Amino acid sequence: MCCIISDNTKKIMAQKKMILDLDTGIDDALALAYAVGDPNVDLIGVIASYGNTYVETAAQNSLNLLHLLGADEVPVFLGESHASTADHFDVMPISQLIHGKNGVGEVTLDVAPRGVEKQSGVDFLIASAHQYAEDLIFIPTGPLTNLATAIKKDAEVAHLIGNTTLMGGALTVPGNVSPFTEANIHQDPEDADYAFTRQKNLTMVGLDVTLRTLLTKTETAAWRILGTSAGEKYADLMDFYIDAYYNLDIDKKGAALHDPLAVAVGIDPTYVTTMPLAMHVTYDRDSGDYGRTIGDKEKLLEPTTTKAAILVDTTRFVSDFQKMMLTVLA
Amino acid sequence: MCCIISDNTKKIMAQKKMILDLDTGIDDALALAYAVGDPNVDLIGVIASYGNTYVETAAQNSLNLLHLLGADEVPVFLGESHASTADHFDVMPISQLIHGKNGVGEVTLDVAPRGVEKQSGVDFLIASAHQYAEDLIFIPTGPLTNLATAIKKDAEVAHLIGNTTLMGGALTVPGNVSPFTEANIHQDPEDADYAFTRQKNLTMVGLDVTLRTLLTKTETAAWRILGTSAGEKYADLMDFYIDAYYNLDIDKKGAALHDPLAVAVGIDPTYVTTMPLAMHVTYDRDSGDYGRTIGDKEKLLEPTTTKAAILVDTTRFVSDFQKMMLTVLA
Repeated sequence: MCCIISDNTKKIMAQKKMILDLDTGIDDALALAYAVGDPNVDLIGVIASYGNTYVETAAQNSLNLLHLLGADEVPVFLGESHASTADHFDVMPISQLIHGKNGVGEVTLDVAPRGVEKQSGVDFLIASAHQYAEDLIFIPTGPLTNLATAIKKDAEVAHLIGNTTLMGGALTVPGNVSPFTEANIHQDPEDADYAFTRQKNLTMVGLDVTLRTLLTKTETAAWRILGTSAGEKYADLMDFYIDAYYNLDIDKKGAALHDPLAVAVGIDPTYVTTMPLAMHVTYDRDSGDYGRTIGDKEKLLEPTTTKAAILVDTTRFVSDFQKMMLTVLA
Repeated sequence: MCCIISDNTKKIMAQKKMILDLDTGIDDALALAYAVGDPNVDLIGVIASYGNTYVETAAQNSLNLLHLLGADEVPVFLGESHASTADHFDVMPISQLIHGKNGVGEVTLDVAPRGVEKQSGVDFLIASAHQYAEDLIFIPTGPLTNLATAIKKDAEVAHLIGNTTLMGGALTVPGNVSPFTEANIHQDPEDADYAFTRQKNLTMVGLDVTLRTLLTKTETAAWRILGTSAGEKYADLMDFYIDAYYNLDIDKKGAALHDPLAVAVGIDPTYVTTMPLAMHVTYDRDSGDYGRTIGDKEKLLEPTTTKAAILVDTTRFVSDFQKMMLTVLA
């Protein structure tokens, strides 16, 4: 009977490995819950990034949220603390208004028993790219500094990772920091360009699609009714985000599911319609379109593995997202 | 035998009616030849626009080219002579370098026996919209001033015209006048916005796709070998355009088939892949993205009949275009 493989083993063997790169952040918290809950992926680690908050805060938030979700087995690694072109990072005031000063909507979370790993996030990404290659799904939902730094340190990373699905950018709609730039890209356009122009099999899940997926307090009320600690905390932090969207006049209809959509698309690309497009990111401050994700007109007749998500099945995704949350928060 | 319909009559009955709105212009000359040559459409008129040249020059060029093509039966109407927000129009120096001072690559054409019509281009468009409605294909390849003026004069036009397929704009690639704006839109962004936000069943054929369809001197050499006056003149003017693209470093590989692609897509939409997107045009000079064709983020969750062409079957179109030219120039 040595060679009978159990159903459970088969399931694990079939699972793709996923690494999240989060600047946690409220919608990052949703992305984390989605990845923890989806049985189709094995979340092998979380890399922390600066962005919505400082890198140390993002790491601690991820640890605390994983603890809340009963997923203490997932390791958290520290990524870069600022853009490669800067010597430090300051949280933008607008980020604090949207995500709260603590990054999780001023909600107090129990401190996780586990700390951050000794290995750096960049080295973890490089090692995982070599170990899992085609089977690795990498989901950055903040600046692309960690990915660019990994490629600079080991150029093979750009060819090894099977699937990089990022939340960031804006192609067919205006940005949310300027008419051209989306917040994640704005943090480090130079490294974003480095990653966009080198990383193979890269899919951009930008404002083009995330602004079409909105969550309201109807859904968070259902989380609260679960009567669990996770349901209550997640409802609290998401309500903070929905209120911020309303009060800052970002969207009165609900709050965009930016980061969880990137996770969902990383697992199941059929949630979105993509177009193949070799993109680059403008990082010349005098260009007039600093931080813009845009097609490279010199490469329009060349094949590319880079894709931009341009349409999304809103109803299916929001419905599936809610089902996933009701399961993982239960 | 009164009621037997001949094959020829059936063909004419099945034909869609087409109006071109041209600022003729070299690639406009190609669009004109394509529309004259395609048996699937009945070219019922050409409206002249300012743009690549003055409106009077555009009208005379269209008349002369129709004469060259043996299509003197097609009437030409004078459109608006400048943007509605301006009191005059000057040809841009770059337009003269690309299209020649006479608009047709400094090629001398025989003067057509026919003159321009007394009816204005705007009134012709309005009357045709009412007469043909769903069966009318309208192809503006210059500024959208004539269309906007028609809608301002008769709002029903926006709902009547069955198919408006314009050459202009840039969504997923940079513009060719600034990082954001394409030349046709740049001439009159305010009227472009007026048309984009009102005209139903509008398809934008912008730089996104036209820069992927290039013609070279290999194709024009074949026109010249036909030994006809039309073949020789068209080869002369297109070679001027290809040389300008090369010398101005717009594209060293060939010259883009901007305007004829719009005609082809108007007749057969399967040449391109489109995305539905409610777009507007920024016309605030302080916005930083003046003259940009971009999705309206307030309308992302609403249905729309506006589409942007984002991909094109380059091989099929360039091949079909060349076949059409070899027929119409023979």
